[in-house]
Amino acid sequence: MELTAALQKLDQLQRKQLAYSHAMGLIDYDGMTAAPSGTAANRAETLGILAEEVYKLSTGDETVALLDELHARMDELDEVHQRIVKVMYKNIDETRRIPMEEYVAYQKLTTESDAIWHTAKENNDYALFMPYLERLIAQTQRIMRYIKPDQPVYDTLLDRFETGLTRAKCDAFFDVVRRELVPFIHRVTAAKQVDDSPLHGHFPLDKQRQLSDYLMQVIGLDRAHCTIAETEHPFTTGFTKYDVRITTHYLEDNFASSMYSVIHEGGHALYDTHPMDKLAYTVLGGGVSMGIHESQSRFFENIIGRSRSFIRLIAPKLHELFPETAAYDDEALYHAFNRAEPSLIRTEADELTYCLHILIRYELEQQLFDGKLTVQELPAAWNRLYKEYLDVDVPSDREGVLQDTHWADALFGYFPSYALGSAYGAHMLHVMRQTVDVDAALASGDLSPINGWLCEHIWQYGGLYEPETLLSRALGEPFDPMYYVNYLKNKYSEIYGLA
Amino acid sequence: MELTAALQKLDQLQRKQLAYSHAMGLIDYDGMTAAPSGTAANRAETLGILAEEVYKLSTGDETVALLDELHARMDELDEVHQRIVKVMYKNIDETRRIPMEEYVAYQKLTTESDAIWHTAKENNDYALFMPYLERLIAQTQRIMRYIKPDQPVYDTLLDRFETGLTRAKCDAFFDVVRRELVPFIHRVTAAKQVDDSPLHGHFPLDKQRQLSDYLMQVIGLDRAHCTIAETEHPFTTGFTKYDVRITTHYLEDNFASSMYSVIHEGGHALYDTHPMDKLAYTVLGGGVSMGIHESQSRFFENIIGRSRSFIRLIAPKLHELFPETAAYDDEALYHAFNRAEPSLIRTEADELTYCLHILIRYELEQQLFDGKLTVQELPAAWNRLYKEYLDVDVPSDREGVLQDTHWADALFGYFPSYALGSAYGAHMLHVMRQTVDVDAALASGDLSPINGWLCEHIWQYGGLYEPETLLSRALGEPFDPMYYVNYLKNKYSEIYGLA
Repeated sequence: MELTAALQKLDQLQRKQLAYSHAMGLIDYDGMTAAPSGTAANRAETLGILAEEVYKLSTGDETVALLDELHARMDELDEVHQRIVKVMYKNIDETRRIPMEEYVAYQKLTTESDAIWHTAKENNDYALFMPYLERLIAQTQRIMRYIKPDQPVYDTLLDRFETGLTRAKCDAFFDVVRRELVPFIHRVTAAKQVDDSPLHGHFPLDKQRQLSDYLMQVIGLDRAHCTIAETEHPFTTGFTKYDVRITTHYLEDNFASSMYSVIHEGGHALYDTHPMDKLAYTVLGGGVSMGIHESQSRFFENIIGRSRSFIRLIAPKLHELFPETAAYDDEALYHAFNRAEPSLIRTEADELTYCLHILIRYELEQQLFDGKLTVQELPAAWNRLYKEYLDVDVPSDREGVLQDTHWADALFGYFPSYALGSAYGAHMLHVMRQTVDVDAALASGDLSPINGWLCEHIWQYGGLYEPETLLSRALGEPFDPMYYVNYLKNKYSEIYGLA
Repeated sequence: MELTAALQKLDQLQRKQLAYSHAMGLIDYDGMTAAPSGTAANRAETLGILAEEVYKLSTGDETVALLDELHARMDELDEVHQRIVKVMYKNIDETRRIPMEEYVAYQKLTTESDAIWHTAKENNDYALFMPYLERLIAQTQRIMRYIKPDQPVYDTLLDRFETGLTRAKCDAFFDVVRRELVPFIHRVTAAKQVDDSPLHGHFPLDKQRQLSDYLMQVIGLDRAHCTIAETEHPFTTGFTKYDVRITTHYLEDNFASSMYSVIHEGGHALYDTHPMDKLAYTVLGGGVSMGIHESQSRFFENIIGRSRSFIRLIAPKLHELFPETAAYDDEALYHAFNRAEPSLIRTEADELTYCLHILIRYELEQQLFDGKLTVQELPAAWNRLYKEYLDVDVPSDREGVLQDTHWADALFGYFPSYALGSAYGAHMLHVMRQTVDVDAALASGDLSPINGWLCEHIWQYGGLYEPETLLSRALGEPFDPMYYVNYLKNKYSEIYGLA
């Protein structure tokens, strides 16, 4: 085949795959935002059929032949096409190892499980969800063994969300975190607690919705290509860079909960809306990995959103929407937003103790996949670890093991990327500060120097570089978790008056 | 092929087609309810690709061979499969006459035009929409000529929405309406006008949303399978009987506008959610034609929703939500909801003058497709007919030719079905009253005797019978428009005190 013709076919193939993922992603999104309650089975039917079509398209003879040919002619391709072929070749190689019936059944199971999880969480009914979780783990085990027969399943899972990540590397990372942060967190917990009364009160939903719109504008989201909806668990989904959706969850007595969800998901959405146009309808059009993705969301949520300068910037809007906050000065608000305290719910955890929530999930996932823990034993194990690491008693599974949607969606191995992402972001801040006056940008209300740095070094590349390559190009040195450790120690030592 | 195997293939084919129409229907619905403003091009890209897949699936060699075989063995099939094969065979025969590129381009055009129409209507900018309308008409002409080369295009269009309907039959229907109703409407217009002040005021959107929920419950919609959203132009879409969506549009100064949209779309949704389960994932799972569909929506909107008994039933809820209405008795409300008066906007027209809005569109569509009217001349022609038939001056294209979404979606030939449906419904009422005490049902608040009759005679059959067959089975005699004429004359003579 002529190379031009082959590349044209490659382009058409990617556009077709993206059309299916747009359709399927939207059906999922609709299920969580707008669909009537009795429609899960219908959605599962449709998604099952479309998944089968995607499977055939992605592993069909024509596709395999095309990628074999392009793979063999790698040195004739430009950088973008080399990377596209590499990524697609890997995907095909993985997908064709999975029998089609299992691939389709797996899709159907996750759709059903998500619906069941919603009901189970609502009714605090772990027993309802348990058989689904059991099947999710068993089917995930089988699927991962098809993909990498000779590798421990949990390594394969980690690599899916952060290419190149292994249990050994992940253990090393968490060892630093554990060694450096656990004793520090104990010191913070023992210190005089900061006051968060500015955050308590009654905050009408319509005002909170206005705050969401304001925050999306402040962090620079283009509303023509990004919208917000309301779901049980906040998330971001992007069909292409031109159509990205974030969601939040409002609590009437706590505006900070949704506020930081919006900023967190907004960080994902900024990344998703900014890859170069030429990557838009390709497999490189989204973020490269979950770790890098979470580095952006948690950068905005914490490093920006919980900084003194950002609180100063948004304080007037907070006073306008929630008059009771006007009784407090900026410094009191800054302290309130940064109160650190062991708690139950990961998504509402403070910046400092957050990594312990991840550590618990990381340990439990390993035990589940090593066969050392059954789904029957999971809630008790969850509660035990929350007592051990965070010294909190879990009053119900709804506030315990059922709180997150990830496992219901078979996203095992995802959680570590939240902690890694946080650490990537702290290292990025260190490098960014060498050329960008972050606090001056926040003081001016114009975040474009910050967004400009992130776009130049991260966002524009979409999936063009491997996570490690992208990171070391952006950082100018290998990633080092000590920037994260030091960032947290400096910030919280000051807030809690520790020497 | 074994007959069992062939029927299994037929089942799978229909399920696959429904999966695509679910996906594509949802992308359309999302575009009108939730998607960010800048996403139309992305949607058009995805819908274009999926339309191509559907085209290939529906006209591919395997599908054609399957339907050829089943068509040849028609006498071995049961009633349901006979009808399925007949409908699918007709669809294939039509679709394969259209070149694939044109089929795909037509899909893309309607998606883009819909988005443009929204902007054009918002900005009262007919010039923006005009070139799209021109292309829509030209492409529709071409597509219809592929389907039926020897038939006038407008006949082909009418038949698409109401199988068996021709311009000659439609002219005959409108002749009765014109002869009987136009002079009667003149008498009503000359009579002392009824007072509609109960409907004027400020009606908060959250109260109107509560009214929508109440109305959906009163007419018997199952909310587990039917939800409501807000759009510029109200509509109903159903992916299967298990997942139906209605929309409405709220006006703060006029609660009756959304109220009757909800009841109208609710009538569509009742029909869409009630076909027999065994028809659910087949081509017979929805309503059989637009005329029958509109008969149900307009039956609920007007014959039920604007009846004295229904107003009595809902009056307490209206008083609760909108305290200013409590100053009026049921009879005053009944009169207010039935004020007849020439007006600008079809969807807000009263039951009596509504058919003149349809007549205008019917005449203009014929002229456009006969080549007797250009899109440049259309707004002036629209305004002229509104002056002639309804004696109203059209102040802007937004309130004139741009008011309806139908033409932007290439739904030419659809409008007559609203008038026909109204007339079908009036004949149904006459027959229903022979076994059902309609007013007693409304007085009790339990509409199940009414819904039961409609389900028994119309809803459960989905697309199983041709419109004419279904109607004559339900009515026990051929359809006669004089029931409609007499129903309107009796009702409005009483309201306006005419002898």
